[in-house]
Amino acid sequence: MNKTRIWHGGDLDEARRLFPEAPEPWIDLSTGINPIPYPVPPLPPSSFERLPSPSAHRDLEAAAAEAYGARDAATVVAAPGTQVLISLLPVLRPRSQVAILGPTYAEHAHAWRSAGHAVSEVSSLDRADRADVVVLVNPNNPDGRCIQREALLELAGRLQRNGGWLVVDEAFADFDADETLVPVLPHNTVILRSFGKTYGLAGLRLGFAIAMEPIGMRLKTALGPWAVSGPAIEVGRQALRDHGWREAARLSRATDASRLDALLEPVSDRPIQGTSLYRLMESQRGPALFSHLGERGIWVRRFQHSPSLLRFGLPSGEGSWLRLGEALAAFKRTWSAR
Amino acid sequence: MNKTRIWHGGDLDEARRLFPEAPEPWIDLSTGINPIPYPVPPLPPSSFERLPSPSAHRDLEAAAAEAYGARDAATVVAAPGTQVLISLLPVLRPRSQVAILGPTYAEHAHAWRSAGHAVSEVSSLDRADRADVVVLVNPNNPDGRCIQREALLELAGRLQRNGGWLVVDEAFADFDADETLVPVLPHNTVILRSFGKTYGLAGLRLGFAIAMEPIGMRLKTALGPWAVSGPAIEVGRQALRDHGWREAARLSRATDASRLDALLEPVSDRPIQGTSLYRLMESQRGPALFSHLGERGIWVRRFQHSPSLLRFGLPSGEGSWLRLGEALAAFKRTWSAR
Repeated sequence: MNKTRIWHGGDLDEARRLFPEAPEPWIDLSTGINPIPYPVPPLPPSSFERLPSPSAHRDLEAAAAEAYGARDAATVVAAPGTQVLISLLPVLRPRSQVAILGPTYAEHAHAWRSAGHAVSEVSSLDRADRADVVVLVNPNNPDGRCIQREALLELAGRLQRNGGWLVVDEAFADFDADETLVPVLPHNTVILRSFGKTYGLAGLRLGFAIAMEPIGMRLKTALGPWAVSGPAIEVGRQALRDHGWREAARLSRATDASRLDALLEPVSDRPIQGTSLYRLMESQRGPALFSHLGERGIWVRRFQHSPSLLRFGLPSGEGSWLRLGEALAAFKRTWSAR
Repeated sequence: MNKTRIWHGGDLDEARRLFPEAPEPWIDLSTGINPIPYPVPPLPPSSFERLPSPSAHRDLEAAAAEAYGARDAATVVAAPGTQVLISLLPVLRPRSQVAILGPTYAEHAHAWRSAGHAVSEVSSLDRADRADVVVLVNPNNPDGRCIQREALLELAGRLQRNGGWLVVDEAFADFDADETLVPVLPHNTVILRSFGKTYGLAGLRLGFAIAMEPIGMRLKTALGPWAVSGPAIEVGRQALRDHGWREAARLSRATDASRLDALLEPVSDRPIQGTSLYRLMESQRGPALFSHLGERGIWVRRFQHSPSLLRFGLPSGEGSWLRLGEALAAFKRTWSAR
């Protein structure tokens, strides 16, 4: 795995290795995970002890279908996080031409390549003409770019005629996308939805695929009947039906994103992009800013092939906001003085 | 899925459907899960909120390597339960001839068939001559039959010469097997170990494959980096290193198994078989006993193709032992009176 090692957010071990002198505790802004988690209810011991019942698992998928606007709960596949779905899809297809709309979340290309497919990164859907499989993240990570529903429906229709697949990773759609594809789910399309990011519970491992047969059934077969833990089923059923929490979180995170933009604009060469859960800035001084923040115990997301880009998750708590604001202001002062 | 529906233990929904008049609470003896669970320690909120760190995941695999006697922690693959490994292995191989030593846990045959392989159940390893893949459960579920290490090493060697695989499901080996294959792991062999059964935490979803490359790496690739939840990593690391608990549990469950045998012997036509976590009896009156117990709120495991067999998990708590004892004694009286 080392040869193809991918940088990810959330790895504070790496932060501590790179910046051993940084003050603890670290402020981890390297992920796109909601920093204000859904409050985990008290979990009955049976959720840890007993095999999850088929009816509880079905009820979780029904809750997800309702939350995401799926027309048929039978199209929903619950999984221990969307990552395993990203990793599994490529092993369920014979060797194919795969076009990935990039740059985007690197695990997609990694998973398809690891399974032996021919992968190319394309900068627009027009360039995916000859692909059997098209993968895109909508809204995109890290830049928030959205592809409209009509373009995707057309693409799905074209792919379907040749037995191709469209994979739409809507990991960040809960708060941001008016254009989710879920209610109009085309054939041969797999939509991925993340629970952990929206609900701030990435460690729980819960995510969903929404797909018609045969893709949905192949995913269910490859996962087997008990891939989702009892605690994830309990928390998921409750949280996905908590419309009030989700709406309040959506508004609060949008406010946070605006506040973050105000801090980043003075050090960014271009307008800030992204979604409510992360903001992307671009600066020729990206590597210097990354180190400046790292030395101050603030861990942000850099990108292997675009050193000028830095992605910031949302701080939580006034202390973190203040530390970030001071660190960015100090960087701005240093830079202006030169 | 309905056409190939498999009976499983642990589904009290089914028990309530079959015996709607039975007194609650049900005594669930339908699984082979330790009824006295490892005490779940207080879990830090971060285990639910943050993505599990790569170092914590590696440490879990190191703890498993030590607990199971693996020579190299790199051969250990942590997963959200062994079921997903059972389901995944068949999609990682081209269409093969698969021999399953049976009768045994039905999910193995189901998973290989679902993925398009040619599956035959064989009654002895001698009859697996032409198989590319041989699957066995050791000790076997439900009858506890053990295959000796030497026979398995010979079989693994033969399979390896033709690129075949040996899959040894050691789900019940923690308490029972002196003959685990883990310390002598042959090439092209996958050993499965269950955490949830031994530690009574089936809802947590944690299990392991132990395999050399390339099989181990293919499983890791198909699962992706975060398939195991934060809570499972925390509990697993601690429990797998708690040698005192495991040894005490082993002795207690062996005592329970003897106590259960004493209750079952009067209603069984043959000697009781099994492991420390379940006991298998055989009686021409199996279906009648199943119903007799069901009407009294005691749910045991029956088998689709062997109605004379009933498998009993271990009761927990004196109340359950008494209810079971009384129900079996009442059945014995009815039967003797005829």
